[in-house]
Amino acid sequence: MSDKYTNMEDIGEFEFIRSIQEGCLFSRERLIRGIGDDCAVIGPYDGKALLVTTDLLAEDIHFIMKNIDPEHLGQKAVAVNLSDIAAMGGEALHLFLSLAIPGTLQVETLHSFYRGVKAMCGRYRVNILGGDTSSSLDRFIINVVVIGHVPESEVLYRSGAAADDYIYVTGTLGDSAAGLKLIKENLSVSESCASSLKMAHNLPQPHLDAGRRIASSRMATAMIDISDGLISDLRHVCDASKVGAIIYQEEIPISKELRALGDTGKLDVLSLALSGGEDYRLLVTVPDEKAVLFEKMFENGEPCQIYRVGQITRAGGIRIVSPDGSERQAEIEGYEHFSQSRL
Amino acid sequence: MSDKYTNMEDIGEFEFIRSIQEGCLFSRERLIRGIGDDCAVIGPYDGKALLVTTDLLAEDIHFIMKNIDPEHLGQKAVAVNLSDIAAMGGEALHLFLSLAIPGTLQVETLHSFYRGVKAMCGRYRVNILGGDTSSSLDRFIINVVVIGHVPESEVLYRSGAAADDYIYVTGTLGDSAAGLKLIKENLSVSESCASSLKMAHNLPQPHLDAGRRIASSRMATAMIDISDGLISDLRHVCDASKVGAIIYQEEIPISKELRALGDTGKLDVLSLALSGGEDYRLLVTVPDEKAVLFEKMFENGEPCQIYRVGQITRAGGIRIVSPDGSERQAEIEGYEHFSQSRL
Repeated sequence: MSDKYTNMEDIGEFEFIRSIQEGCLFSRERLIRGIGDDCAVIGPYDGKALLVTTDLLAEDIHFIMKNIDPEHLGQKAVAVNLSDIAAMGGEALHLFLSLAIPGTLQVETLHSFYRGVKAMCGRYRVNILGGDTSSSLDRFIINVVVIGHVPESEVLYRSGAAADDYIYVTGTLGDSAAGLKLIKENLSVSESCASSLKMAHNLPQPHLDAGRRIASSRMATAMIDISDGLISDLRHVCDASKVGAIIYQEEIPISKELRALGDTGKLDVLSLALSGGEDYRLLVTVPDEKAVLFEKMFENGEPCQIYRVGQITRAGGIRIVSPDGSERQAEIEGYEHFSQSRL
Repeated sequence: MSDKYTNMEDIGEFEFIRSIQEGCLFSRERLIRGIGDDCAVIGPYDGKALLVTTDLLAEDIHFIMKNIDPEHLGQKAVAVNLSDIAAMGGEALHLFLSLAIPGTLQVETLHSFYRGVKAMCGRYRVNILGGDTSSSLDRFIINVVVIGHVPESEVLYRSGAAADDYIYVTGTLGDSAAGLKLIKENLSVSESCASSLKMAHNLPQPHLDAGRRIASSRMATAMIDISDGLISDLRHVCDASKVGAIIYQEEIPISKELRALGDTGKLDVLSLALSGGEDYRLLVTVPDEKAVLFEKMFENGEPCQIYRVGQITRAGGIRIVSPDGSERQAEIEGYEHFSQSRL
């Protein structure tokens, strides 16, 4: 290795992405918003904004075959993309699946994977319209693209949050990260509790219905899905909206399963809820004067519970308020490829 | 390995794809045509059909890093997708790029790859709207998605060819396959000839302008791009249109470089022109009564030369007519993953 060259692992994903973002736009035709949100937004066509999202999952980076039922893997590969459509307020329509398949992979495993893909697509009436099937020398690679649409006036971006907006999340946090810990380590906790947390990791549910309801109400100012962790994704909203936030620690929704696992003293529940990734809940900001009406939309717990966890601030940075009223700056947390493994 | 299980390499790509095509459609909303053509066709929106295509390229399956300039690899990864948009008569608009990057890959190599991606996108005014950047344990994986559009009434499918239609191709054939041979083996041929054929393989040009001109003329009945080889892609058109075809061997356009290489006696030019893949020319069928007008559109060689190579027949099967008038059935040729390497 000559000193002249830099490896990807030396600079990391975020610096690399910054380095290639210049010079990507060549035309304004049918373009509403490019790089920088959960989906690209193209159109408008017929008053609709088209949403496009894509995610690549690589074996031994994002998943380990022996740790996940292939059917769950199929469902999850779809769900994480549907969650991006949900985060923009959209309806998911069509899916494209590219696979690089090792010749030694069993056909039965692949059929099980496809059963999962089709089950998740069927649940949300998303068509599988093709993709590309290729061989791979050794590892299984999955690329999913989902296209959705949303009335142009209802698209929710990360960039709309304003000072004093309340911050809501559409479900409990930290379950997926705890499930991942349980998949990797044996912690003494009840079977049903372990199973529920592992399922939160292996079978996340996209909040499409909640996303549509929020967008069509036109009450929210910004939305994102929580894939990297509460603090990390809230930071994306704050950066895009040029604001800060406070989070009330005691308001963070923790499932009873995660609480039970925390009671074993083997892990830090708060840290998982703040920084654990892959919960795929939505984070929404809503002006304080609309909060009552907004909360009313979810009062019967349908399609999900919502929780008010904090408030947007004019001053930058994210502060966490402890139950005793003391405040601290949230650390810079969040997942980065090339510097740690997501496994 | 138990007898109970089947590996992917035992059944091959095409049988696997057949086995998973059932049960992929869950809604007719904004769906024009799903699996089975060069692009999926969605919409209509504002009278436009949206075209979506995706291709996955895996290191050591589709390309070998030491055999291709990374900038050319970037251009080619874009070009093969633009060619699918061209094959439907569309205009390419937006591109999404997912990469799985080994940590040991040099940033300089990636920047060079991106220069190629941007150069090809810039030439056709295609926006790069994002994608996904992830790490990979060892090999470089590239997934490209391109979205285009075309007036709904102008979309060209594989399925419209009818008996007596003439068959045209938009350029010489076999150059890319010959270039690949030259990359792998040292054949004694002039440097300029070798360089030109290697470029045909590493830097194919999508025929977007020709595709748009053909579609907007409304004279053609079917179109496809030649990615798998003339016979193989013509077979796709014949199968979809429920017709057969004859190809006149002496009408197949062969570049002077390929002819020169053939003169060395080291390779079978005809076989490369019939079955070599990755030329990315368009194959078009045109009713005989429109042939004069159709050919007139290209008479000054702009945007490319076209060549009439055969005719659609009512009877199934593809026959090749030799210069002496004798006929033979075209063999079942065409690339299949898992059974041979494309390298």
